[in-house]
Amino acid sequence: MASAALPEISKPKIVEGPGGYVLEDVPHLTDYIPDLPTYPNPLQDNPAYSVVKQYFVHVDDSVPQKVVVHKDDPKGIHFRRAGARQKVYFHSDDVHACIVTCGGLCPGLNTVVREIVCGLHHMYGVKKVLGIDGGYKGFYAKNTVYLNPKVVNDIHKRGGTILGTSRGGHDTLKIVDSIQDRGINQVYIIGGDGTQRGAALIFEEIRRRGLKVSVAGIPKTIDNDIPVIDKSFGFDTAVEEAQRAINAAHVESESFENCIGLVKLMGRYSGFIAMYATLASRDVDCCLIPESPFYLEGPGGLFEYIEKRLKEDGHMVIVIAEGAGQELLSQSIQSTTDASGNKLLQDIGLWISQSIKDHFSKQKMPINLKYIDPTYMIRAVPSNASDNVYCTLLAQSAVHGAMAGYTGFTSGLVNGRHTYIPFNRIIEKQNKVVITDRMWARLLSSTNQPSFLRPSTNLFSNENGSQKSLDKKVTH
Amino acid sequence: MASAALPEISKPKIVEGPGGYVLEDVPHLTDYIPDLPTYPNPLQDNPAYSVVKQYFVHVDDSVPQKVVVHKDDPKGIHFRRAGARQKVYFHSDDVHACIVTCGGLCPGLNTVVREIVCGLHHMYGVKKVLGIDGGYKGFYAKNTVYLNPKVVNDIHKRGGTILGTSRGGHDTLKIVDSIQDRGINQVYIIGGDGTQRGAALIFEEIRRRGLKVSVAGIPKTIDNDIPVIDKSFGFDTAVEEAQRAINAAHVESESFENCIGLVKLMGRYSGFIAMYATLASRDVDCCLIPESPFYLEGPGGLFEYIEKRLKEDGHMVIVIAEGAGQELLSQSIQSTTDASGNKLLQDIGLWISQSIKDHFSKQKMPINLKYIDPTYMIRAVPSNASDNVYCTLLAQSAVHGAMAGYTGFTSGLVNGRHTYIPFNRIIEKQNKVVITDRMWARLLSSTNQPSFLRPSTNLFSNENGSQKSLDKKVTH
Amino acid sequence: MASAALPEISKPKIVEGPGGYVLEDVPHLTDYIPDLPTYPNPLQDNPAYSVVKQYFVHVDDSVPQKVVVHKDDPKGIHFRRAGARQKVYFHSDDVHACIVTCGGLCPGLNTVVREIVCGLHHMYGVKKVLGIDGGYKGFYAKNTVYLNPKVVNDIHKRGGTILGTSRGGHDTLKIVDSIQDRGINQVYIIGGDGTQRGAALIFEEIRRRGLKVSVAGIPKTIDNDIPVIDKSFGFDTAVEEAQRAINAAHVESESFENCIGLVKLMGRYSGFIAMYATLASRDVDCCLIPESPFYLEGPGGLFEYIEKRLKEDGHMVIVIAEGAGQELLSQSIQSTTDASGNKLLQDIGLWISQSIKDHFSKQKMPINLKYIDPTYMIRAVPSNASDNVYCTLLAQSAVHGAMAGYTGFTSGLVNGRHTYIPFNRIIEKQNKVVITDRMWARLLSSTNQPSFLRPSTNLFSNENGSQKSLDKKVTH
Amino acid sequence: MASAALPEISKPKIVEGPGGYVLEDVPHLTDYIPDLPTYPNPLQDNPAYSVVKQYFVHVDDSVPQKVVVHKDDPKGIHFRRAGARQKVYFHSDDVHACIVTCGGLCPGLNTVVREIVCGLHHMYGVKKVLGIDGGYKGFYAKNTVYLNPKVVNDIHKRGGTILGTSRGGHDTLKIVDSIQDRGINQVYIIGGDGTQRGAALIFEEIRRRGLKVSVAGIPKTIDNDIPVIDKSFGFDTAVEEAQRAINAAHVESESFENCIGLVKLMGRYSGFIAMYATLASRDVDCCLIPESPFYLEGPGGLFEYIEKRLKEDGHMVIVIAEGAGQELLSQSIQSTTDASGNKLLQDIGLWISQSIKDHFSKQKMPINLKYIDPTYMIRAVPSNASDNVYCTLLAQSAVHGAMAGYTGFTSGLVNGRHTYIPFNRIIEKQNKVVITDRMWARLLSSTNQPSFLRPSTNLFSNENGSQKSLDKKVTH
Repeated sequence: MASAALPEISKPKIVEGPGGYVLEDVPHLTDYIPDLPTYPNPLQDNPAYSVVKQYFVHVDDSVPQKVVVHKDDPKGIHFRRAGARQKVYFHSDDVHACIVTCGGLCPGLNTVVREIVCGLHHMYGVKKVLGIDGGYKGFYAKNTVYLNPKVVNDIHKRGGTILGTSRGGHDTLKIVDSIQDRGINQVYIIGGDGTQRGAALIFEEIRRRGLKVSVAGIPKTIDNDIPVIDKSFGFDTAVEEAQRAINAAHVESESFENCIGLVKLMGRYSGFIAMYATLASRDVDCCLIPESPFYLEGPGGLFEYIEKRLKEDGHMVIVIAEGAGQELLSQSIQSTTDASGNKLLQDIGLWISQSIKDHFSKQKMPINLKYIDPTYMIRAVPSNASDNVYCTLLAQSAVHGAMAGYTGFTSGLVNGRHTYIPFNRIIEKQNKVVITDRMWARLLSSTNQPSFLRPSTNLFSNENGSQKSLDKKVTH
Repeated sequence: MASAALPEISKPKIVEGPGGYVLEDVPHLTDYIPDLPTYPNPLQDNPAYSVVKQYFVHVDDSVPQKVVVHKDDPKGIHFRRAGARQKVYFHSDDVHACIVTCGGLCPGLNTVVREIVCGLHHMYGVKKVLGIDGGYKGFYAKNTVYLNPKVVNDIHKRGGTILGTSRGGHDTLKIVDSIQDRGINQVYIIGGDGTQRGAALIFEEIRRRGLKVSVAGIPKTIDNDIPVIDKSFGFDTAVEEAQRAINAAHVESESFENCIGLVKLMGRYSGFIAMYATLASRDVDCCLIPESPFYLEGPGGLFEYIEKRLKEDGHMVIVIAEGAGQELLSQSIQSTTDASGNKLLQDIGLWISQSIKDHFSKQKMPINLKYIDPTYMIRAVPSNASDNVYCTLLAQSAVHGAMAGYTGFTSGLVNGRHTYIPFNRIIEKQNKVVITDRMWARLLSSTNQPSFLRPSTNLFSNENGSQKSLDKKVTH
Repeated sequence: MASAALPEISKPKIVEGPGGYVLEDVPHLTDYIPDLPTYPNPLQDNPAYSVVKQYFVHVDDSVPQKVVVHKDDPKGIHFRRAGARQKVYFHSDDVHACIVTCGGLCPGLNTVVREIVCGLHHMYGVKKVLGIDGGYKGFYAKNTVYLNPKVVNDIHKRGGTILGTSRGGHDTLKIVDSIQDRGINQVYIIGGDGTQRGAALIFEEIRRRGLKVSVAGIPKTIDNDIPVIDKSFGFDTAVEEAQRAINAAHVESESFENCIGLVKLMGRYSGFIAMYATLASRDVDCCLIPESPFYLEGPGGLFEYIEKRLKEDGHMVIVIAEGAGQELLSQSIQSTTDASGNKLLQDIGLWISQSIKDHFSKQKMPINLKYIDPTYMIRAVPSNASDNVYCTLLAQSAVHGAMAGYTGFTSGLVNGRHTYIPFNRIIEKQNKVVITDRMWARLLSSTNQPSFLRPSTNLFSNENGSQKSLDKKVTH
Repeated sequence: MASAALPEISKPKIVEGPGGYVLEDVPHLTDYIPDLPTYPNPLQDNPAYSVVKQYFVHVDDSVPQKVVVHKDDPKGIHFRRAGARQKVYFHSDDVHACIVTCGGLCPGLNTVVREIVCGLHHMYGVKKVLGIDGGYKGFYAKNTVYLNPKVVNDIHKRGGTILGTSRGGHDTLKIVDSIQDRGINQVYIIGGDGTQRGAALIFEEIRRRGLKVSVAGIPKTIDNDIPVIDKSFGFDTAVEEAQRAINAAHVESESFENCIGLVKLMGRYSGFIAMYATLASRDVDCCLIPESPFYLEGPGGLFEYIEKRLKEDGHMVIVIAEGAGQELLSQSIQSTTDASGNKLLQDIGLWISQSIKDHFSKQKMPINLKYIDPTYMIRAVPSNASDNVYCTLLAQSAVHGAMAGYTGFTSGLVNGRHTYIPFNRIIEKQNKVVITDRMWARLLSSTNQPSFLRPSTNLFSNENGSQKSLDKKVTH
């Protein structure tokens, strides 16, 4: 993350209304640049839009964060609805946009890039759209490339990102210098929570310098660990693709005696992919996620459960998220020494495979274990149809927002409606599986796995730290 | 539909609250049977659920129908939230459930059947679940089969419905006689708007007879034409599978001179599949749906647009929903005589293919036309992962509702939350693409097709009949 | 086919050897141009090839046509083995190649194009490769485009042909004029039996004019109806893709009462795709192909068999090749009059669907019929891995042959070895399913369908005309 | 492998004919049991077969091993053609068959099992077919299960083997005791070279005991490492499925700077899958197989090549067979000590990933490496259509052979024709990629990778041991 003198953070924009109505609004260029001229939205002349009555979003449209309500509840927090506005704050010829993709791969990245380019071009007549190469550091360390609808025409059928991506490389001042020097005035930043945190810093520095530059984030996280939004793009595709690995593990485990099919799925801090892939498949006997601690030895532990399943059925399938069992792993690693092997064992999938083999070898119970890590095969597929449509709307929302002068916002789906969410809400914490919620109960019920709570554990007293997450989403 | 003396319709249950809050509630067995005993929900003893704080849905939980709001708006219409209740109105040993699937195939049917069986069995310990064979008439004209988790274990990986299905065959009195005679007390009915209309009649007759029988509907419509709910199960899978046909049409059209790839998709009254498949694909140049009338000849007509595209690009792809252009087709059919050919021409895809060929043949402009009808290939695939999870939750919601004594309801997703919706709201009208809404504008913008409005047409004055649908869903 | 004065046909080149050995050789430029200079094959300097001992094909290598032999059999007919020769007849800088694709789509077309370009470029250092646009008529009526490895790099992942294709348009003299005028000296022609017949005419005209131009054919026929060769490229992919349609028909038929799933597959004159797709699937109850006549009414007819199956199982799947039952269809069409419907009914799939419906409607036996025509969805997919490798070897063989001065040949796989086959053998007749052979017996055994031989029919006496085909391939 | 007193090996049956014709025949029950009665083949009464003229294989039909011939060549080695015989040596009611699957998973196992069961049942009216559970040891240590067409009806659509499988467990005497005790008289053994070696021992012991028991092998090896036969079943499917992993590696590598996508594929001793997957894909820059040694450091080594590629293109894809580089790995492992990590490093994919990372880390050149091991995901898929047909014919050939009294044979495809091959030819050596052959040259040419021959290496003098393999298959 950036080093030098960081800009002070701007205040959240909160608007209140009757009945407990709260709007957590997003910044606007006019917050810090007075007297900006406006222009009629060029969409008014677009034949596709001209037939649509009330095409433009009403200035007061908002979407509640919470939709499970009681009749006496206050109205609560709302977000500004996304969409085209009657007036825009950029003349099409003056727009100089840029797009950057950061972090790991996720199905749909190319669709988002394509639709920002096509949205700017077809809807607003914007001709200058710059692609930043290889993530944040591409702003100051690499060449850029101009994008137009022809260049991006087929990219949504390919996985990965044509812009290239990288982790890190965020240097706020260098990036904003580059934006300023190149005359860029719309910045589209596609990335996860770290990236959005970087986007917030860029926005703050731009505001500090008083530049007329809109900064729009599009949340990208295959793990679905970004809060507030319903789900991240690419998530459905990832869960779908994970089914292949689980099917393979199931077939392998059924074909050998005492066989365990073990699949590692993405999810460093959040087990959503593992949980949904398990729920969608029905062939999984145990799902291990970062949010739900477990232990190996002794009564109620994983080894006992494995032994039970093998003795009853002769086979089983385990799904483990990459971030599960980190505390077990770190204890274990400290006691070994060899460098290379050690590095390998920091992979929870390899480590737990070895632990299970060692345990049953000591028990003199012969087992087979088939370990599958489909991570890169999942990340690299093109997005499915549903994610394609979702990416299109996210991208178009971001474009409408930037053209309308909003800045410092993330484009996001909230309760099925596209909204603009202030950066601070996106980066304040991570979205996690709430293991005291019904979705996890459904999972436990479908796998019949133990809860891995040690007899002494009192879940609720232990959980004070993350207690607030209980309030978040008692979803579905 | 049923003939004999129909029962009078029960009144909607409306509850009002402060700030304009309205709850459109669903019926309950206690509405017409007083003093029913209740039992503690057996889920309280299920280890999977026992760790979950506040697992049970609060009695006052409700979900608003409208989530794009202004700060001064009244709270508006709400539906009762779905989920397990603390008290149930059936003792597990007394439950005798049945499941019936009606109408055309849809990806996910088997998953819904599986999850009703497994939900009843694993969550509530219900052992007696009957499968009705071949739709409504299976109640009185065919044998039934008992279902258990083992029988249904793998069925979600197969397309179609293991129960068999059919259209029609609804005879309210015979069906309710059969329910009464067999001692069935929970009826799960999976089907489209016609089927739900039948379910409403069954519910009314059961209420009239004072039977302690819960009637739960699960809305099934591959066309997504059921109102109120966010989308129907199987829809995502269908849009995904439709991509294959569109891709093929695109490849064919690009490989031949003056070639038109024409794909017919499902959608008798609603063009959602065609619209979403077009938006997801980006290879479509023209999308024709029932909601948007078009004409062939003359300026602004389809032939002119085709000619323009072929002259500019040398190829094009058209997607047409099966219900599009019905008025053109019926005019045309009246003027022909031969029986067999005539029947074939009632298929809009074949008819428009022939019309296009005839037109350009008369114009002496040689064209190629490749017509693809993937309907059955789309309907028959198994549901994808996302639909699998959705079907699971729909089924479990229905089970929780029936166990809790609710009846005469449809299980449905509203703004991302599972709810119970009274039958009358599901069957009062069809969900349609609102062509004066932004989603259709997005489509027009992505295809660049004309709006097919004749110069003289005034869209809004013509539309009084369906004007109310404009209010419905100004979605996304 | 070409009109003007056709060139006389050159004589087959037959070489005989001891033990009944016969080599049906292909023409060579030196057959009609004496004293052509030769050059060392540039592959000798290619690092990839330099490690390979005896990389070049021995001048005497040949491959027998018949490999089921008795110990006293004569050696029989052989073809020249394909592959690189020590000496070539073109200097790389002098080569000016062109590629044309003709006829319908077939998976693998782009791979063949790619590999001719890359083979010429990487193996022989040839820089000038011209793509002819839209089939034969592209030689004289359209612009051409230069191809290089970069242009064709990713095309094997796409279906269709980047060159465009068309049927007909063959005008020998105009084409050879164009070849001569443009200075083309290697012509690669990818197409089916009609196309190869055209290639033979082009070769003969070129020979007559004494031009130093190699003409190489690559056989393309999704129907697998080209004789001599083991199978055509794209066939495996087509059979694979056909499984989707058959699966869908199976699912549909099982889900409705008295339901027939009917799938039309490619095969105008040869039923190979229908036969192999049926054998691979195991869900098919009846497979109808052009080679095996059938009738509808009366004992032993199709209607009787359908009725039997529906009464026994309640459902069935029929696969019909597009060329099956043509005599039934033509009789039927004569008796109807309406133009448009008539044209539709010339499609055997639509016609037989209607006939079945009409029959059972007259019988008052209600049936469901689900008709699937996946033709364009099959043709347009990219080739699978196995076909990709096959296409690569076919293309490289053609390139080696042309560089070595062979001409008037088709590159083809014979008994698992790549060979050069003289045009006359490829075009003299069509490859057909031999219904008195074991493969068809296997099919009949797997479907249990009747043989549809009328009581009076004597198969063998009727078959004198095609009797020779019996000798051809008593394969596998 | 079996311990106790092994039976002496029976002599090969060699038949010679004029012109250098040699038939390497397979054993027959009458070789050691005189005066066995014969029966007319029941297929003569099967309607499917009765229309087929000369359905039965002629007693003298044979297939040459070598089909690239010169006109003066002797006729060479032949194998007996597979297929139904006019006379059989078992009465259908007396047949008691068993099927066992051994070794790792391979696509198509279930199809072979299905078709043996259905072939015996439908073609020969055999009712008693026993499934042996979990490989060889299932003969003596586990329960068996009876198989019939209904049980196996859908299994070809699933991956794995319904019989279960295992490695090892071969105990000749116990197995033959079990065969004798259970009264089994046809043994179908599906497995790789180790398994076929075991089958040979079983056959010899049965012959020694003079039992009327046919032993038929069906060669199964996903690696394609069994000699003589054209290719093993499941191989095409495996190469197809491997494309997914290579595509993912390609997408990942293109999206990050200096990124290497590394895919490990099956192939302990033979690199066929790696080679064909590379040829089919075109996205691979380096393919490493067991047959072609390579080294890491110094000029001409792997590291140098990687550095070159990254500097030129910024990314690359490497495919490595699991058996490649074993000598490098074993040197390296000896120098490390930690047990668990050590075990992991015995995986060449993990080891070489670590080695590459370590090297470039020392070089201070930042790289990304994405490692994919799709092994289990490939093995566990169902066979594709082409492999399904192939498995069907293999299984039917084995059934025809056993019914005809042949024993001690493997059913195999030779030059496109099904044959019976004596065990000794199958087990005498392994099929390997001949790196001095043209197929490997094609690969080198397509990847442009170095040959990894150290300057001093003389390929041919080093290769004396395996020199004969050079003669084997100068294929395609």
